[in-house]
Amino acid sequence: MAALRNTRVLLADRPVNRRVQESDFKIDVADVPEAREGEVLLRTLWLSLDPYMRGRMSAARSYAKPVEIGEVMTGETVSEVVASRAPALKAGDKVLARAGWQEYALLPAGEVERIDPQGMPLSYFLGVLGMPGQTAYCALLGIGQPKAGETVLISAASGAVGQVAGQIAKLKGCLVIGTAGAPDKIAYVKDTLGFDAAIDYTGKDRDALGAELAELAPKGIDVFFDNVGGVLHDAALANLALHGRVIIVGGISLYDRLESPDIGIRWNRQLLVKRARMEGFLVWDWRHQIQQFRRDVSQWLREGKLRFREDVADGIDAAPRAFIGMLAGANRGKQLVRVAAPQA
Amino acid sequence: MAALRNTRVLLADRPVNRRVQESDFKIDVADVPEAREGEVLLRTLWLSLDPYMRGRMSAARSYAKPVEIGEVMTGETVSEVVASRAPALKAGDKVLARAGWQEYALLPAGEVERIDPQGMPLSYFLGVLGMPGQTAYCALLGIGQPKAGETVLISAASGAVGQVAGQIAKLKGCLVIGTAGAPDKIAYVKDTLGFDAAIDYTGKDRDALGAELAELAPKGIDVFFDNVGGVLHDAALANLALHGRVIIVGGISLYDRLESPDIGIRWNRQLLVKRARMEGFLVWDWRHQIQQFRRDVSQWLREGKLRFREDVADGIDAAPRAFIGMLAGANRGKQLVRVAAPQA
Repeated sequence: MAALRNTRVLLADRPVNRRVQESDFKIDVADVPEAREGEVLLRTLWLSLDPYMRGRMSAARSYAKPVEIGEVMTGETVSEVVASRAPALKAGDKVLARAGWQEYALLPAGEVERIDPQGMPLSYFLGVLGMPGQTAYCALLGIGQPKAGETVLISAASGAVGQVAGQIAKLKGCLVIGTAGAPDKIAYVKDTLGFDAAIDYTGKDRDALGAELAELAPKGIDVFFDNVGGVLHDAALANLALHGRVIIVGGISLYDRLESPDIGIRWNRQLLVKRARMEGFLVWDWRHQIQQFRRDVSQWLREGKLRFREDVADGIDAAPRAFIGMLAGANRGKQLVRVAAPQA
Repeated sequence: MAALRNTRVLLADRPVNRRVQESDFKIDVADVPEAREGEVLLRTLWLSLDPYMRGRMSAARSYAKPVEIGEVMTGETVSEVVASRAPALKAGDKVLARAGWQEYALLPAGEVERIDPQGMPLSYFLGVLGMPGQTAYCALLGIGQPKAGETVLISAASGAVGQVAGQIAKLKGCLVIGTAGAPDKIAYVKDTLGFDAAIDYTGKDRDALGAELAELAPKGIDVFFDNVGGVLHDAALANLALHGRVIIVGGISLYDRLESPDIGIRWNRQLLVKRARMEGFLVWDWRHQIQQFRRDVSQWLREGKLRFREDVADGIDAAPRAFIGMLAGANRGKQLVRVAAPQA
């Protein structure tokens, strides 16, 4: 067949102590080479946009190596097999892959996972049934270990991870408080997801947030599921319950200023006073739980006990703007890019 | 008998965001009332001075209530029973008590614990066999869980808690690094206690300390036993190993400026990157381990595997100055006040 034309989003510049801007990316078009023995040629159907990608744009040492300038931006996709030179996969198969921000990708067959959707939307495998969902499930249950009647605080409560974590905490019988940055997000979290309370953090400093938390959680916060960091983190630590657990899942409020000197936690003494535990979480460490996670969450979805909202941008060209919007909180739910429709 | 005259040290003022000074205390002399039914009259032999007492001088909410202005300063003592109106205790018995900074105290017999020294110095029950020793033992083994071959960092390594924690980590086969603030403390920690390395933090900022730690712990710090807080804490977090454990035992570097806004941890993102755990420790939660602690540590002392250095001030009047000196690091080992010699 004629060579396929592949539109790709490359990293063009590294934002340091500033917001990401569209000029940090470059869109180009390249030919797609043919698959060699053992490889599959993939067409991207869905691209996941996640806050961790902000870290990959930085050269700083982290848990994964940075994307190099001129490289395709990294990212998980749901893709369709266009051509296969591996026995385990055939054209038309749907797979989970790290194909990145591009329309086509050539990958070793061993690096992709065939999806059996069982009636679930394909995009769910990048959201509630994918990395964000597993993060919520494993971090909350494995590290937070919430007990019925305890108070759980979820930051970025309407985001891909937060909405799942909060609903699972509700299923476990907890009093659940969420935070978000817009009135409609607050309404979504309370009215649609059924959180007990939600705080709009917009324009509030640490003391104001702390006072609001003290009122909503008079016995203190037993589990703090933190996607955000920054002043909200400080306010939450000031309100920890005895033997509280803080799960550091992300720190999106800090990603544009990680190099700045003023982003420390002020309230760490509360860990001593409250004999609390704070633990970092990375979903890679919990691969052994993926079957249990998918079984439980699929079940909850089928029973209508769990809802999941997605925010879809169209076309690979839209990825930079959607990503920048997500970092600023413009998304409503899990941010995805619909790159192509399935052909098979 | 004629009324005994009791010299006492009272809290006269609360230091807020400043160093403690002698005028924060007032020394007075009072009569000692006679023991009532169920009470014992105690003569203080040894008074323990501990960093946590700085917290009791503050009105801020903590894990224990503050000392009120005009009250006797709180503190653990080894005391001798002068007179007893309780069947379980008789004159001459040696007990562990919270008699405070004074020469005599009247306490309910149920609030004191008879000591059976078994050849150990009485003062050890305020140090290596008392609260500081138990803190070192339970926090290191229970929370830090160091494994042979791992790297353990102990701050305030020559202090009452640090010297015990570091030696236990050595007994467990770890590579042990200590920090202290004077050349003779560094020599003591390395040459006498057998730590593998020690860093004098004097005059070094976070980056300099971080670079030194990176050199001494090239594979990262597996267990950070922190008595100090502040810039050293930040430098250590920047050098955590994957799945590192941080035990927050104290924060003596911050006690004179807890109200100040600039004392946060800058490096908490490292908890996520390293999937590390940070946990507050308070010895009260580990009472159930006291027998095991005393058995193990007594055994190590008898076998010469554990050393313990004490720094003794003489007379109850000397307590304020010794306490202020300890907060500034002037002590060499566990700070005690020898209030009286045993008479029985």
